[in-house]
Amino acid sequence: MATFSLHQSSLFSSTTLQTRPRSRLAISTKVRMSLQETGPSIAVVGVTGAVGQEFLSVLSDRDFPYRSIKMLASKRSAGRRLTFQENEYVIEELTADSFNGVDIALFSAGGSISREFGPIAVDKGTIVVDNSSAFRMDEKVPLVIPEVNPEAMGDIKLGNGKGALIANPNCSTIICLVAATPLHRRATVKRMVVSTYQAASGAGAAAMEELEQQTREVLEGRPPTCKIFSQQYAFNLFSHNASVQSNGYNEEEMKMVKETRKIWNDPDVKVTATCIRVPVMRAHAESVNLQFEKPLDEDTARDILKSAPGIVVIDDRTANHFPTPLEVSNKDDVAVGRIRRDLSQEGNQGLDIFVCGDQIRKGAALNAIQIAEMLL
Amino acid sequence: MATFSLHQSSLFSSTTLQTRPRSRLAISTKVRMSLQETGPSIAVVGVTGAVGQEFLSVLSDRDFPYRSIKMLASKRSAGRRLTFQENEYVIEELTADSFNGVDIALFSAGGSISREFGPIAVDKGTIVVDNSSAFRMDEKVPLVIPEVNPEAMGDIKLGNGKGALIANPNCSTIICLVAATPLHRRATVKRMVVSTYQAASGAGAAAMEELEQQTREVLEGRPPTCKIFSQQYAFNLFSHNASVQSNGYNEEEMKMVKETRKIWNDPDVKVTATCIRVPVMRAHAESVNLQFEKPLDEDTARDILKSAPGIVVIDDRTANHFPTPLEVSNKDDVAVGRIRRDLSQEGNQGLDIFVCGDQIRKGAALNAIQIAEMLL
Repeated sequence: MATFSLHQSSLFSSTTLQTRPRSRLAISTKVRMSLQETGPSIAVVGVTGAVGQEFLSVLSDRDFPYRSIKMLASKRSAGRRLTFQENEYVIEELTADSFNGVDIALFSAGGSISREFGPIAVDKGTIVVDNSSAFRMDEKVPLVIPEVNPEAMGDIKLGNGKGALIANPNCSTIICLVAATPLHRRATVKRMVVSTYQAASGAGAAAMEELEQQTREVLEGRPPTCKIFSQQYAFNLFSHNASVQSNGYNEEEMKMVKETRKIWNDPDVKVTATCIRVPVMRAHAESVNLQFEKPLDEDTARDILKSAPGIVVIDDRTANHFPTPLEVSNKDDVAVGRIRRDLSQEGNQGLDIFVCGDQIRKGAALNAIQIAEMLL
Repeated sequence: MATFSLHQSSLFSSTTLQTRPRSRLAISTKVRMSLQETGPSIAVVGVTGAVGQEFLSVLSDRDFPYRSIKMLASKRSAGRRLTFQENEYVIEELTADSFNGVDIALFSAGGSISREFGPIAVDKGTIVVDNSSAFRMDEKVPLVIPEVNPEAMGDIKLGNGKGALIANPNCSTIICLVAATPLHRRATVKRMVVSTYQAASGAGAAAMEELEQQTREVLEGRPPTCKIFSQQYAFNLFSHNASVQSNGYNEEEMKMVKETRKIWNDPDVKVTATCIRVPVMRAHAESVNLQFEKPLDEDTARDILKSAPGIVVIDDRTANHFPTPLEVSNKDDVAVGRIRRDLSQEGNQGLDIFVCGDQIRKGAALNAIQIAEMLL
């Protein structure tokens, strides 16, 4: 039997700061009907990947209703078995026929798989929630963070037999905008300077394993094995591995620039980003400097954030307790702290904030499943 | 015999990216006279600390001339022996009498030691180069980065029997300003937004050991031992541990704000900083967004940086090779890369850059010894 436990039960979620019990894929604590009879028929594309595993975990945690579920992956993984909510499934190879009768497909198998199979699924009447970057900037495809721009879903709905594509934004964009949007609504962000501290998980399960392996090697005085990344990751950090464009920005940074404009429906908002990979396992952090059109003092900002959906404010100056990647790992909420008036701007025209969010969860799987929930 | 090799010869400088051979304290490769007869009489205060060790290493690497050298530390370390440049020294307890006949004292033993013994040394005619924050903002004390504001030294010189205090800036400030100043001279920085990625070394040798120990513990599935920091550091990051002021900035961030104004002799320059501790051993990284008064295109900026002192430009977009903490560890130069026009500003009014520098070396010991060299 295939096991999918490494990144959910291993050392990085067994720390003292890991307080929220996780549902386990293989040992569900819930008593369920062996086959549910209501809800849509769903498919998970890329089920063996880090996000694919998290799709299953989030579906279970949120009691997402489904009539049936297909586990889809590449030919290499086909035939392996997987226990989910006390039922055993055989992983099937993704083919053009995979979407017959499927209402909702959650894709996380890379851009080329999405480009090939996304349109096929849509033709069969499936609503595709796609975690890749393939369709994000397509004008016809909504790019949705449920807390931010649910209206972008338009008239996409289940039950009318019409397929559709919905894009999940880039993880860094989601985590940044969950925090920045409530402030944007009040004071209108005109410029945003973001520096990221991105976890291994954004490069997939193999990158997480590489970080762990390299760390062991370095501690043992051995040279680190570099397969996913071209340079040492353990006890180091480096500019994001996405390719660099002619304007000097890498693709990850340009996603933040472009996706923010689309999600906020504001082609004029100014964004610059510097995206850095740090030796952290599964949650991103972001240092965000905001310039507003209208004044917004830090106490009002804190109150706005405290009552905003999907956010937990961790901002204890006395205890020096602010968001950390470890503390948000396996959590749904984006944590916001270090909320303060930017001394480099006049009056209350600017704020600095520090944001952390689980890259695999809110940065990918959870956001996609929240989109799917909006269809129910 | 005391050994001072941990952070200089251990796993973190034995990696594949560590290319520059280090001089070792105990096994000098240089043949020297057993006692030099020229040069000033010097003292190292805090010789057992991470920066104290680096003082010795840099003195040796740069063939700093000295007539005699005193190794000073707390009572706890007094009596331990230390081999430096093939001579054996007994570490002496720091007392008011330690500075009799000492021309230059390099201090790195914390602010309270500097506040107590700095003025005593000055009274005895010693020129103190102080690595603590004790005197940095004192109007009468020059705050010097030799590449940036050598003129601030004024008429302080050796040989006239007059003692003086010279302050070494904060490590994050040094590393940032070595990179930003050549651009500032050309185009005048009006606002700077900095996010740091700071190494363990800034919190001392014990913090480096804690990061290493915690990492081993977490990899073995054990709870991490938190002594220096209040939370898990291994595979995590957190807001800098300096205390947070009522304006929401921590002291590390305010050092960057205030020291930049003093060093640039520009009380109006706007600076905001977010300082974050990352699980890296001994070199800081900084993401720096610059807004200029005058236009400065990125090619000109790159050329300026390439010819600036103390800087190496690492900016290979095709190979995705940019500065990393590991690559600058044990190096003198500050590395600058990711040099690009800031898309969030009009025309050529802004740049984003990414900077790395060895915190112990250029961020502390090297800068102090460069100051001392200006006295010779």
